[in-house]
Amino acid sequence: MYRIDCLQFANWSEQIFTEMREGAVDAVHVTIAYHETFRETVAEFSRWNRWFQEYEHLIMPCSTAADIDRARESGRTAIIFGFQNPSPIEADIDLVEILHTLGARFMQLSYNNQSLLATGCYEDEDPGITRMGREVIREMNRVGLVIDMSHSADRSTIEAADLSERPIAITHANPHGWHPALRNKRDDVIRAVTENGGMMGFSLYPHHLKDGPACTLESFCQMVADTAETYGVAHFGIGSDLCQNQPDSIVTWMRVGRWTKGIDYGEGSASAPGFPPQPSWFSNNRDFGRIETGLGNVGFDRDEVAALMGNNWYRFFAESFAPEHRRAVST
Amino acid sequence: MYRIDCLQFANWSEQIFTEMREGAVDAVHVTIAYHETFRETVAEFSRWNRWFQEYEHLIMPCSTAADIDRARESGRTAIIFGFQNPSPIEADIDLVEILHTLGARFMQLSYNNQSLLATGCYEDEDPGITRMGREVIREMNRVGLVIDMSHSADRSTIEAADLSERPIAITHANPHGWHPALRNKRDDVIRAVTENGGMMGFSLYPHHLKDGPACTLESFCQMVADTAETYGVAHFGIGSDLCQNQPDSIVTWMRVGRWTKGIDYGEGSASAPGFPPQPSWFSNNRDFGRIETGLGNVGFDRDEVAALMGNNWYRFFAESFAPEHRRAVST
Repeated sequence: MYRIDCLQFANWSEQIFTEMREGAVDAVHVTIAYHETFRETVAEFSRWNRWFQEYEHLIMPCSTAADIDRARESGRTAIIFGFQNPSPIEADIDLVEILHTLGARFMQLSYNNQSLLATGCYEDEDPGITRMGREVIREMNRVGLVIDMSHSADRSTIEAADLSERPIAITHANPHGWHPALRNKRDDVIRAVTENGGMMGFSLYPHHLKDGPACTLESFCQMVADTAETYGVAHFGIGSDLCQNQPDSIVTWMRVGRWTKGIDYGEGSASAPGFPPQPSWFSNNRDFGRIETGLGNVGFDRDEVAALMGNNWYRFFAESFAPEHRRAVST
Repeated sequence: MYRIDCLQFANWSEQIFTEMREGAVDAVHVTIAYHETFRETVAEFSRWNRWFQEYEHLIMPCSTAADIDRARESGRTAIIFGFQNPSPIEADIDLVEILHTLGARFMQLSYNNQSLLATGCYEDEDPGITRMGREVIREMNRVGLVIDMSHSADRSTIEAADLSERPIAITHANPHGWHPALRNKRDDVIRAVTENGGMMGFSLYPHHLKDGPACTLESFCQMVADTAETYGVAHFGIGSDLCQNQPDSIVTWMRVGRWTKGIDYGEGSASAPGFPPQPSWFSNNRDFGRIETGLGNVGFDRDEVAALMGNNWYRFFAESFAPEHRRAVST
């Protein structure tokens, strides 16, 4: 059984890498860009290169699913890189392949706002995938960079799922029917992603949870059970959105970047602008065992629990991270 | 027998890639930066990525020696990337690993002028490897980016050969004793490089040849024989420095970059500022067979000819292109 978390953005440290090992986490998809330019994103790869040297007994870079097996064999956690916004490619489609070569495996087509490629979930209007968006989807398909629509608007997400020749992902969100947050996904969105072979990762971010930080493990696991029953257990995993040890300035950067001189509270509010507290049963990488137990308690059998805890993501990575070996210039 | 050319900088086209196949050239080290910044160099990788798609039946990227075998098996030429100047890393040592990940396998520490790392062969004074140069040599050793001193000054070259924990290269030059051009290498330089396990590629660039474009194949091959006898045949190969189909504006860019608003003629002169004509017996990739025959005619046996035409470079690549698997942060 693999244990894979398909989204974290912690304030990385030896402590957190050690907790990944204590929690037996085989692989983590980490965000390295929210609003960063290409050059700033390269500096983030460099920051990780230094950590891979310094903590080589704890972590290693992951570019293929097979790297996760190499990480397990050597008692390490495999680190997968992703962007929550297409800002790293700027307006240059060639940077898709460059960034894939550097290790990127997920890229969101938009983050809350309109991007060059797609619409974000906070915009009033969603005109769908743009002209450049269609080109970039094709290029991402070609090189093996997974389309992630976690922060995108509904129409854009459904169009991306349909336009993409390879399955796409919502790495971190929950069903809107369980908790009607703006970032949680409506039925037709989840259906479009899963019917095209895609994956969704269940989020443990309090704003995505029914009752917020007071959400119970039982409620979360029952939601997983209901969702798996509706769309099929094969299409789901965990994408915890864990933002451990981050100062509140980081959630402000995530929400505001450089797109406004003002303030945007996103899922927070003027009275609660910072990171919300985590639910008591999930505060760091050592807590994945609780979810595993909780999933068993709501009726999943052993294989289903394994699928949800990481096997589904492993299969998806194995199918998604490598280039397609075909001529892709014919358009 | 491998056929490998360890330096070309042509005006790349389908014609030239086809000539590589006609000449049965298994691998070519191509220059993608003379004075380019990091971002400009990334655009050069992108340019090649497009060619790898468009001409995938002729060429493929090479990051390990084993890729040369894959190229042979599929009837293609493997392309190895290199820089003639450290300008792509700017002043950021982390870019060494980033650029290696993108595919760079050779980097000159200086090009004619003083760089942040070492002195170029046109400077009056050569203070040797700089403080940053020592750090970058260690980092290049760690990741498997080969130190190339083709355009560096003598003291800097000898120091680099001694400081480097892995063998270094002079990818394209000839012995100064045969033809006393500024760019050709004196005995103590060749000795320092070869005694440390390094390699030198014989150049076919007319300014590096005795009698220039009128140099005979026999003279060139006899020089190879004399050099191999002095330093050992295992340390030599071809680095033709072929600059096919380039307009003269390119040799001006190579010499001048952005470091002067004036003009520098380098190995040329005011009366002959452009690219010199090639010798009649070596004008493109179809002509390697002539050199192979010529080497046999000056007395090399079959294995020695194979060593010189590519087997030595193959062995050197196999030993040089991969990261060293050790902790490298202790300094």
